[in-house]
Amino acid sequence: MKITYQGQSRHYRTVWFDPARNRVRLIEQRLLPHKFKIVSTADFRDTALAITDMIVRGAGAIGATAAYGLAQGARAFRGRGLKAFERHLAKVYRTLAEARPTAVDPVSAMRGVLSKMTDDTVAERQEQALAAAEQFANDDVAHCEALGQHGEPLIHNGSRVLTHCNAGWLAFVDVGSATAPMYAAQAKRKSFHVYCDETRPRSQGAILTAWELAQQGISHDIIADNAAGHLMQRGEIDIVIVGSDRTLGRTGEVANKIGTYTKAVLAKRHSIPFYVAIPLSTIDWELESGQAIPIEERNEDEVLSAWGVTPSGRRQKVRLANPGSKARNPAFDVTPPELITGIITPLGIFKPRQLWKHRVKLGHTTSGC
Amino acid sequence: MKITYQGQSRHYRTVWFDPARNRVRLIEQRLLPHKFKIVSTADFRDTALAITDMIVRGAGAIGATAAYGLAQGARAFRGRGLKAFERHLAKVYRTLAEARPTAVDPVSAMRGVLSKMTDDTVAERQEQALAAAEQFANDDVAHCEALGQHGEPLIHNGSRVLTHCNAGWLAFVDVGSATAPMYAAQAKRKSFHVYCDETRPRSQGAILTAWELAQQGISHDIIADNAAGHLMQRGEIDIVIVGSDRTLGRTGEVANKIGTYTKAVLAKRHSIPFYVAIPLSTIDWELESGQAIPIEERNEDEVLSAWGVTPSGRRQKVRLANPGSKARNPAFDVTPPELITGIITPLGIFKPRQLWKHRVKLGHTTSGC
Repeated sequence: MKITYQGQSRHYRTVWFDPARNRVRLIEQRLLPHKFKIVSTADFRDTALAITDMIVRGAGAIGATAAYGLAQGARAFRGRGLKAFERHLAKVYRTLAEARPTAVDPVSAMRGVLSKMTDDTVAERQEQALAAAEQFANDDVAHCEALGQHGEPLIHNGSRVLTHCNAGWLAFVDVGSATAPMYAAQAKRKSFHVYCDETRPRSQGAILTAWELAQQGISHDIIADNAAGHLMQRGEIDIVIVGSDRTLGRTGEVANKIGTYTKAVLAKRHSIPFYVAIPLSTIDWELESGQAIPIEERNEDEVLSAWGVTPSGRRQKVRLANPGSKARNPAFDVTPPELITGIITPLGIFKPRQLWKHRVKLGHTTSGC
Repeated sequence: MKITYQGQSRHYRTVWFDPARNRVRLIEQRLLPHKFKIVSTADFRDTALAITDMIVRGAGAIGATAAYGLAQGARAFRGRGLKAFERHLAKVYRTLAEARPTAVDPVSAMRGVLSKMTDDTVAERQEQALAAAEQFANDDVAHCEALGQHGEPLIHNGSRVLTHCNAGWLAFVDVGSATAPMYAAQAKRKSFHVYCDETRPRSQGAILTAWELAQQGISHDIIADNAAGHLMQRGEIDIVIVGSDRTLGRTGEVANKIGTYTKAVLAKRHSIPFYVAIPLSTIDWELESGQAIPIEERNEDEVLSAWGVTPSGRRQKVRLANPGSKARNPAFDVTPPELITGIITPLGIFKPRQLWKHRVKLGHTTSGC
């Protein structure tokens, strides 16, 4: 998307590749919104570290980073013979897969790249790796754009849209999921307003979504997570669009950032449409119940403290809470299908309980069920 | 309540009076939970400033502070004659009433004190003022204790109680409203756990309620405002008890800190009892609709920033949000009666829609309706 930095506007993806220097290039997301910086990773180990240290985060973005990292590692091979190359490649794969061990996207992205490396010579496979990684990134963008086209008609002139957390282009290679319909509506010159839930404890809404929307020139306000119910009650929200970390293809349940379920319950009470925007890779066709989704309990320090910037511009962590008190910090919750108006995908909008019926179209390829 | 400070435990009210030195004494609430400090106000102007600057906050607490401030001002009169005394008293009253112009408690507390100053001499009236102020503070404590007795049976051994914001003893002279049933249950040696909503943007739950509960030795965890829905979904909340800034006697609607409505909607969905604990002074017998309650929109800076303490112990404000983005900051919301299981008062627990039926018992004295 367009970023204005030091007075100049240009288009950036969250991650891309420099073939001449064999480097993966990334927006340093940990410094946003207070500083915009591009980092280059020197080798695949460096790329794995960028994933581990959350220089890059978000399903699509870390998938593409791992795909590029695999190509980077393959292209750095200086030995001789396919066998040595395969051994080297296995090490690259392992290093990148272990960068965020619970995430599925890096692994599935790298598997896609490996499946394209079929030619006979090391040099050919090196080129195939890069081409496949580029293809992965381009597909990620195309999928987000497609879901944006399907979601765009939901946003009208004058719409007031609520979103939660960051399911924006920073979480993907470009465009984003929950934000994709907004950017498509902006391209059609529709005028609308977005309310960004702050999204405590990590404040991704106040930090990342607000920054993204500001960069694209979309009218928005940040609100405390407590305020959405009141705004709905007073008729000031017309539609809710959120992303998802995992959507169950069998039940239509949606796991997403903590607080999503609350917004869905409120939207239902106020008859406000509640949409979830996802790329197909987010659909889990195996799990049979949302109760089976493991809910990560993150470090309590996230709730007890906050990161921000002092008036003098220094990044600073402060303790908010009573010293000695402890916190619970569940990071995700599960929204049941009866609260969800529709799932916006690159292939169209589906009722959550109809994902399973359309599973072949939606890419469910396992035969066992 | 009991406070442990520098290794010593003793009982404190939030506000009390030192007759020998004619000073109002207050817990400096702005420094909590990081520092415990008592301040003494030198004269009634100083007392008014303590209200304005929020050294003391909360309905009952500022009511008692104004009552003591009026007595302090009356006792400082050094002139001669009732007329001069009355002129002086009018100035004292005005100064204290203007300290927080939208609050009703200081005004109604001072009116109560004035109505008791009926004797013939200045000296007698000065003594009556102090006696009436002491009576006001004692009544505030007695009311909170009475509502605690009525609410106590709602908390069982093993109960997991959710509360929002701070309706604790820091908001009153002692005991508190939402916390009163908890302290009464603790006195009966019941074992239970409290979840304190952080309550962004001002974090009163994480700061004040958590500090109070920690001082009294009550088991508790702080949670992000986003997390209550998930905990309810997983069966980890048994009852919700909150306070109220204004409860409509005619409709049973409850205005309270932003986010209260959301918790009530969630509790209803999960069939979890939702109680509001109030002293009678909180009931508004005049307003005919919750829609007519003015909802204060506070400075957006509260949402965009947070106050905390650095690792080196310095109080520091940090900007959380994207620079340049703006915020909406409604401070209160209104919960309709159908979401409220009961209103806990010093006179018993009432269904919200039955307040009006019991208005005489509940102290509605105006004849005009």
